Amino acid sequence: MAKFKLEKKTLIYDGRIVRLVVSDGTIRGRKARWEVVHHVGSVGIIPFITKEKIVLVEQFRYAVGERLLEIPAGTLHKGEPPLAAAKREIREEIGYAAGRLEKLDIFYPSPGVTDEFVVIYKATGLKPSKLAADFDEDIKVRVIKLSDALKYVREGRIKDAKTIIAILLIARKK
Amino acid sequence: MAKFKLEKKTLIYDGRIVRLVVSDGTIRGRKARWEVVHHVGSVGIIPFITKEKIVLVEQFRYAVGERLLEIPAGTLHKGEPPLAAAKREIREEIGYAAGRLEKLDIFYPSPGVTDEFVVIYKATGLKPSKLAADFDEDIKVRVIKLSDALKYVREGRIKDAKTIIAILLIARKK
Repeated sequence: MAKFKLEKKTLIYDGRIVRLVVSDGTIRGRKARWEVVHHVGSVGIIPFITKEKIVLVEQFRYAVGERLLEIPAGTLHKGEPPLAAAKREIREEIGYAAGRLEKLDIFYPSPGVTDEFVVIYKATGLKPSKLAADFDEDIKVRVIKLSDALKYVREGRIKDAKTIIAILLIARKK
Repeated sequence: MAKFKLEKKTLIYDGRIVRLVVSDGTIRGRKARWEVVHHVGSVGIIPFITKEKIVLVEQFRYAVGERLLEIPAGTLHKGEPPLAAAKREIREEIGYAAGRLEKLDIFYPSPGVTDEFVVIYKATGLKPSKLAADFDEDIKVRVIKLSDALKYVREGRIKDAKTIIAILLIARKK
């Protein structure tokens, strides 16, 4: 990329979650354009309520037009460290406080298009907590066995990247 | 989502790879906004040149500002079936023709924000082919052992979602 010469950067949209910036320039004399979706970053948490049972959430995802089974997750608030966001999200989405959060991985969901990163934690020592006031009624909480989750990944019933990665990484450690 | 009432849909940007649409409406009387990044979809291919050795590509990713180690991949051309795109990408990116392509998985990288889907294939029976005319000089081809790739996933050196998923799925099958 040493030969990329930036000529113009245009802010197209600056919204609630995404900020779209288009960069125009040249590479080795040829015109080039990058469309980058800037994103503040996300966290996902795989919560164990027993050694074998995890908590997933099922919700309608407007962007893809279907209900998906996922680990609890969410976007970072401005300036919020990922660990704090993880604690907030498990309280908000499934009504638990985590005794222990262990970082499992950090990855880029789609590095060709967006700088979004996702930090995944394993949560243990869960204690029921009050559901947050802005609890989303559309989120259904599902307790399932890790072995079943793994089967859902293999069968393609779990389609969300962070959930697939969390389950496969945990399965490797067992 | 039955209670979501759409009031306005605005096309913000219609570009080379992304199309940004903002939907405004209400859920149970409260104002709500969805920012959706529409994407035509992608393919990724994990190519085996021997039973234990795979081919990865290393390239600078403008969106995230770093060089990443990934499986060969790319965006679908308009109207192009994923299988045809997979054949095209391994020829363009690593200069091979695949004898056999087996679908491993299909997933959503970031379903809260985008409808992008990624189809992952395992490629075997590879034969050297001519590199395509628009071969990208900035892509470095790397042949590595699957066991090393797995180590890179564990160590966080492989950070790209499709690459992590392809390697972990393959490792489970072994």
